[in-house]
Amino acid sequence: MAVVSDIRENFADQLVSAIRRKNSCVVVGLDPSFKLIPDTIKQKFSASQKQALEYASRVILEFNTQVIDLITPYVSIVKPQIAFYELYGWWGVWAYAETIQYARQKGLIVIGDVKRGDVPSTAEAYANAHIGEVHIDNIVEIPFAADAITVNPLLGTDSLIPFLQTARKHNKGIFILVKTSNPSSGELQDIMCGTKKLHEIIAEKTHAWGKDFIGKQGYSAVGAVVGATFSHEISKLRKIMPAAYFLVPGYGAQGATAKDIAHCFNPDGLGAIISASRSILYAYNISPWEKKYGISAWKDATQEAVIKMNEEIRKILK
Amino acid sequence: MAVVSDIRENFADQLVSAIRRKNSCVVVGLDPSFKLIPDTIKQKFSASQKQALEYASRVILEFNTQVIDLITPYVSIVKPQIAFYELYGWWGVWAYAETIQYARQKGLIVIGDVKRGDVPSTAEAYANAHIGEVHIDNIVEIPFAADAITVNPLLGTDSLIPFLQTARKHNKGIFILVKTSNPSSGELQDIMCGTKKLHEIIAEKTHAWGKDFIGKQGYSAVGAVVGATFSHEISKLRKIMPAAYFLVPGYGAQGATAKDIAHCFNPDGLGAIISASRSILYAYNISPWEKKYGISAWKDATQEAVIKMNEEIRKILK
Repeated sequence: MAVVSDIRENFADQLVSAIRRKNSCVVVGLDPSFKLIPDTIKQKFSASQKQALEYASRVILEFNTQVIDLITPYVSIVKPQIAFYELYGWWGVWAYAETIQYARQKGLIVIGDVKRGDVPSTAEAYANAHIGEVHIDNIVEIPFAADAITVNPLLGTDSLIPFLQTARKHNKGIFILVKTSNPSSGELQDIMCGTKKLHEIIAEKTHAWGKDFIGKQGYSAVGAVVGATFSHEISKLRKIMPAAYFLVPGYGAQGATAKDIAHCFNPDGLGAIISASRSILYAYNISPWEKKYGISAWKDATQEAVIKMNEEIRKILK
Repeated sequence: MAVVSDIRENFADQLVSAIRRKNSCVVVGLDPSFKLIPDTIKQKFSASQKQALEYASRVILEFNTQVIDLITPYVSIVKPQIAFYELYGWWGVWAYAETIQYARQKGLIVIGDVKRGDVPSTAEAYANAHIGEVHIDNIVEIPFAADAITVNPLLGTDSLIPFLQTARKHNKGIFILVKTSNPSSGELQDIMCGTKKLHEIIAEKTHAWGKDFIGKQGYSAVGAVVGATFSHEISKLRKIMPAAYFLVPGYGAQGATAKDIAHCFNPDGLGAIISASRSILYAYNISPWEKKYGISAWKDATQEAVIKMNEEIRKILK
């Protein structure tokens, strides 16, 4: 893989420019599901009994490139979730790496949704793998080349320092899990620790970790994952982390609506990017598109779903 | 990759049998560091400027197979840390998959140290990737085939259910992060939530999650990661989770001694497996082995280090 130049601006500035360029803060989650990929794509490849993981991974990459071509006029950011690639073994991880390369060639910002977190020496390896570089004798290689990744803060500051240092060195971004979108997220994240909930403490730390990463637009390269499904928490988190970009999952398939996400934004109309996966990728399969289009017109369904999501979010930002 | 039969006993019973067979509860962490791998191994492969990631990954796999051959007479369990493979991109993940296959062929139990954790649909993909199976049309494939993995509990019960279900279906194990071994682990994990520390609450939940997974030997297939570097916490955790197998990192390079880990065990001499990585793999490079052996005799150093670690732990179990 080619070595990418490090002469880049602060990640948050890149993000704001990209959002303004297309007037879109939508993030398309590239979460492939082999079963839901249209047969027209599968038929391009020969399914071999012996090499099913390779076959599935090639199908996934082809689907992703078609989706990327389709959405690039409308959105600036994609977010491949690595779990749905690991599911196909190392071949799947190959498709993950190739997907990132292709999206970046198209000028998209790529957030690797990897949710890594580990002890310092291990975190350093993860950071270099996903947003940094590796030295092999005298050769420098970029293993995965995402622009930003999601990280899990459970292990504390020393486990995050390698991600922060790597982000600084290469002008990359990180999004720290503050309040996740799943129904059980409150079980630990909402636990009262004295007068504060655990996720509020994580939010305060995220604000502190991000203070030295603020770009020209006033936002930090250290962002936060904040689930849209808990809109009552969001206003408070917005105040605790005024400079953090919120990566907001849960729109569409996970049940959050445009109204729920309104509080994620600052008065400047910035500060949040909103992610949807299944409701865009497999729009042909869900209401209201499945009746209008069906699988043979999956591209039209995906295109209309992403245009509509942009419109819904623009409406609440007016 | 071949489909592995699911006719296996409870993971904790497999673990106890394996420990008894070799009278060893040592886990060798297979954390490759390209820089520290002896040149005699690197010289078997031609370093190509264009394919440095492939070259490094082939070197790593060769090193791992030699280490596995060397340690198999003395230990029953290995624990590859996937971060040190992801560092070499998808080629590195290939080496991770091949390492697992090789270790299992040698009869070793493999714990994939992946520390995954995500929302339910994503957690399901991770679970199937690492300890389950994937269906591609009518073909069933095993993406990574570990016997057990480590998981991060920050997202709560619904994020762990897919791991629990997959472990049950395939008689695999999971180790939940309860108290990690890094210096900052207390920052969130020791926070007081009412009268309890956060990691004690996670320990109580781990005990509850593991109740339905107890094997014939009285131990659960749902274990806990408990850092040996905090010996004052361990006795309390042993009481909260009497049936959980403790995966104890931090022995050797991270500073924990045999004395520190004594409290991890139950009176039956079972209940804990102790992990060391750098102090075994790169014994030739550290005290007291570096003067006696040096790099040309790295195998002797590794062999003596693993024998000595076994002896140290047996001594405290008497």
